[in-house]
Amino acid sequence: MWMDTKPEAEEASRSRASLSRRVLNSLLLCTGDMEHLDKYMQDKLFVLQLAVWGLRGVARVILANNPLSGALVLAALYWASPWQGLLGTLGVLASTLTAIIIGQDSAEVSAGLHGFNGMLVSLLMGVFSSAGDWYWWLLLPVCLGSATCVFLFSGLSSVLDRWDLPVAVFPFNIIIVLYLLCTGPDNPYFPHHPATPAGALEPNSTELIAVEVMHGILLGVGQIFACGALGPSLLILGAVLLYSPLLAIHALLGSAVGTLAGLSMAVRHGSLYSGLSGFNGALGCMAVGGLFFTFSWRTHLFAIASAFLSAYADIALSNLLGTVGLPACSWAATLTATLMLLLTGSLSAYRIPIGQVMAPERNMHSRSQWEAGNTVERESTDV
Amino acid sequence: MWMDTKPEAEEASRSRASLSRRVLNSLLLCTGDMEHLDKYMQDKLFVLQLAVWGLRGVARVILANNPLSGALVLAALYWASPWQGLLGTLGVLASTLTAIIIGQDSAEVSAGLHGFNGMLVSLLMGVFSSAGDWYWWLLLPVCLGSATCVFLFSGLSSVLDRWDLPVAVFPFNIIIVLYLLCTGPDNPYFPHHPATPAGALEPNSTELIAVEVMHGILLGVGQIFACGALGPSLLILGAVLLYSPLLAIHALLGSAVGTLAGLSMAVRHGSLYSGLSGFNGALGCMAVGGLFFTFSWRTHLFAIASAFLSAYADIALSNLLGTVGLPACSWAATLTATLMLLLTGSLSAYRIPIGQVMAPERNMHSRSQWEAGNTVERESTDV
Amino acid sequence: MWMDTKPEAEEASRSRASLSRRVLNSLLLCTGDMEHLDKYMQDKLFVLQLAVWGLRGVARVILANNPLSGALVLAALYWASPWQGLLGTLGVLASTLTAIIIGQDSAEVSAGLHGFNGMLVSLLMGVFSSAGDWYWWLLLPVCLGSATCVFLFSGLSSVLDRWDLPVAVFPFNIIIVLYLLCTGPDNPYFPHHPATPAGALEPNSTELIAVEVMHGILLGVGQIFACGALGPSLLILGAVLLYSPLLAIHALLGSAVGTLAGLSMAVRHGSLYSGLSGFNGALGCMAVGGLFFTFSWRTHLFAIASAFLSAYADIALSNLLGTVGLPACSWAATLTATLMLLLTGSLSAYRIPIGQVMAPERNMHSRSQWEAGNTVERESTDV
Repeated sequence: MWMDTKPEAEEASRSRASLSRRVLNSLLLCTGDMEHLDKYMQDKLFVLQLAVWGLRGVARVILANNPLSGALVLAALYWASPWQGLLGTLGVLASTLTAIIIGQDSAEVSAGLHGFNGMLVSLLMGVFSSAGDWYWWLLLPVCLGSATCVFLFSGLSSVLDRWDLPVAVFPFNIIIVLYLLCTGPDNPYFPHHPATPAGALEPNSTELIAVEVMHGILLGVGQIFACGALGPSLLILGAVLLYSPLLAIHALLGSAVGTLAGLSMAVRHGSLYSGLSGFNGALGCMAVGGLFFTFSWRTHLFAIASAFLSAYADIALSNLLGTVGLPACSWAATLTATLMLLLTGSLSAYRIPIGQVMAPERNMHSRSQWEAGNTVERESTDV
Repeated sequence: MWMDTKPEAEEASRSRASLSRRVLNSLLLCTGDMEHLDKYMQDKLFVLQLAVWGLRGVARVILANNPLSGALVLAALYWASPWQGLLGTLGVLASTLTAIIIGQDSAEVSAGLHGFNGMLVSLLMGVFSSAGDWYWWLLLPVCLGSATCVFLFSGLSSVLDRWDLPVAVFPFNIIIVLYLLCTGPDNPYFPHHPATPAGALEPNSTELIAVEVMHGILLGVGQIFACGALGPSLLILGAVLLYSPLLAIHALLGSAVGTLAGLSMAVRHGSLYSGLSGFNGALGCMAVGGLFFTFSWRTHLFAIASAFLSAYADIALSNLLGTVGLPACSWAATLTATLMLLLTGSLSAYRIPIGQVMAPERNMHSRSQWEAGNTVERESTDV
Repeated sequence: MWMDTKPEAEEASRSRASLSRRVLNSLLLCTGDMEHLDKYMQDKLFVLQLAVWGLRGVARVILANNPLSGALVLAALYWASPWQGLLGTLGVLASTLTAIIIGQDSAEVSAGLHGFNGMLVSLLMGVFSSAGDWYWWLLLPVCLGSATCVFLFSGLSSVLDRWDLPVAVFPFNIIIVLYLLCTGPDNPYFPHHPATPAGALEPNSTELIAVEVMHGILLGVGQIFACGALGPSLLILGAVLLYSPLLAIHALLGSAVGTLAGLSMAVRHGSLYSGLSGFNGALGCMAVGGLFFTFSWRTHLFAIASAFLSAYADIALSNLLGTVGLPACSWAATLTATLMLLLTGSLSAYRIPIGQVMAPERNMHSRSQWEAGNTVERESTDV
């Protein structure tokens, strides 16, 4: 188009573009996927490497891939309950080490893909245990359960690869359900609370308190880590914000949608106040809105649909599994996100191949950069 | 073989064949798949096109692909209950429109493939609702549920395509179960009846009435649309007959087989009288006998086996899902038909690729035409 | 390496190798897969062929493929209970004949692949029936259930082939669960006992008897055929030993691991004493330790992990299915073995393609022979 631009002006525009790109890059150092850290860590001590892999694993639970986010989340968990923090740390280490021992792909291990399922299993084992904090025998199932997640992750990835689907938190959902079934309702060694279904009748129905419901929306983000305290939940939201503001917005939006779905189905108030109604919506919304699909208005609408679907499916599964005293965990969000990834039609045009998924901003940036690159190339061939 | 036929005799036989073919074709105008209508509708108003797509969707529920059959079925539903007719109409429109909005393949939309699941979901929501007819709030879940079917259809088709399997009524079965679970047993907004398992004990066991059982076999065809009245059921059978007499015979045969299976397992009498024992058998028998496989005596025997398998699996699933108050819907027939399509061995030789499935008579006709064409070709090369 | 070996010495070493190979081969005549029998039977009477196919089918239940093992197992079953022996014989014949009638692959039929599921279905129908022995009506569901296994085997193999997975005992597990659900708790024609979950509370908790637990480990091998008597169980173990000593060791090891897992979860004593805690562990251990993977120390460790996983999953599934009165059958071991076969990483390097699976000793032998052949070849090119 600019057939007659002078070389100097072009040079200046180029240097300006490169400057802005450099500033952007330095800002992106602590946000996004922090890939530069991997190169920096390559020849460091194994323990340091393991720590970074573990922190990435912690962050992966909230769909982030940033060790600093992981550190913030871990701090939030220790703040909420040191025992839960310890269990989480142990879980992520146990599963990452198992993955190394049984020879899983090192790129997957260093990306933290083998840590997050183990961490979730450990946290949920701790939450459901009715033996109280610092019950040291619990470390045995925590380590075994986390290690087993790696087997399931590896096996499921062979199946799901055919459709380029992520394994996501399927292993966690399977293992925690098996653990709770295995220990049964009155196990002498590992007793646990039965889960209350979302649609359970309440003994004395009281008025719904609006402020508590608003709290519940914020707590929905924390409930992804089975954390029900407001402060730590905000810190976890901060961790998402550090990785990607777009993801943080979708987390809150999804939690609100989930709470709305809960209200429309008249679930028990406790479920709304604690954020349990919101977290599946949050996960479903985050997965579609920017992470696995390039962000756009169309993707955004699909993300809201995904949040509603996740939330309603969660209520349904919670009622079903509640009949045998089991929690619905994040089955609903995982299944919904998988469904969305399988969708044909207009959404599939925005899909990012699983191997190239990065922070939402980065996904958009690389697409616009690629388009800009195309323009520059066309210009240079013009000149 | 006819090395010495004279050209005139050949010509005459050819013209006779072409005449009979022309007569057959004009008879087939209102029966079978009515493909000619698609060309005729191409430049008509969108509303008219949508009506045809919707009617095809209605007919798809009974495995037919004929808008006139769809119109007959819809008339039967309005006859049985205007409220159910309205829900069905709304369901088929909601899901077809959703499919257009989220950009599904237009060939699939115009073939009615995105309508039948939504219609079934709407009808079943109406049947299970305990709020009575004309409860307008029900239109909300009806529209949402029907729309969600499109998401499931699209997602499942990506998976099942690998084995050239049809999505069939999997989305309906999933959504209706999720809806009933979601609203739970005592929902204040959307109350519903719990389903009674087929094997439930009857309070006072009475003699089995043979005439009622015979009625049940006819009602089995109507129960595919959750319709339990005799007149409308006969009209629905007529709609199948219009599409394909062979399919209608298999529907009745399958329903009889299902009732026989019910008798052998001593299911409750209500299940036999209402046709609920028969409809899974009918669906299983129709799918194998002529639709997805070229009709032959061997296919016919497999169709009977499929009917028995569907019927027994339905009793089993009804007893299982009945423990949590859920109906077995058409899970049994859908799973059995899928199994039959996956079968290796002698049945697989008769299988028609999913993309080429037409009315059973047409399937046989095109095969015999193809064989005749081969013969003619061989003759002409002989001469 | 041996650039300067003299031709005579080489010749001698070759003849020594061939002699030892010949001796080994003659020893292997009655052990291992007995492939030579297939050639010998080719032109014999159909009834004799069917008998061999059936006996291979019987042996396949314990992952062996040897008609003599099958005969020993059948003898053990008739010893334990003639009625159960009759049911087993009928089941294996019904399903093998069905496979021939519906045109399944003849190589699969002659390898006994269509017999073992039918046999297990028949045995379990007999065990759960509460109508007592010699209740002749039971032969009806036994024949139908066994025949249906062939349909499921064929259909599932189409799906699982994509990942080179064996169908294993999935058909048996599905059919027996459907049968028990179909007949319900109080069926007038085919009554059956409800299953007791492993974690059920015991009315009066007594001391655990160590000797009984040791018995339970041995009975675990017999429980693969639903046989709870010590003598026949030892005979079944002998049948495994005849096929492959390595497999027999893994069977006992897996049963011990399963009992240990049962102890750690405080399952009811009856489950430990009867061997029900052990048999899933035994199956999981056998599948990984030498059968589907070349034996090595690494595979051995994975086999132990598989045994633990199978045993814990069995307790979990037993508690889940027990809530509706269903047994967990061998779901746990089948799913675990399938997972192990899907595993990526270091275990997958030892995996043997399903089509080439033979007795563990033979798998090792053919690998070492192949390596030796490589060496010989390299030598000959050197000379």
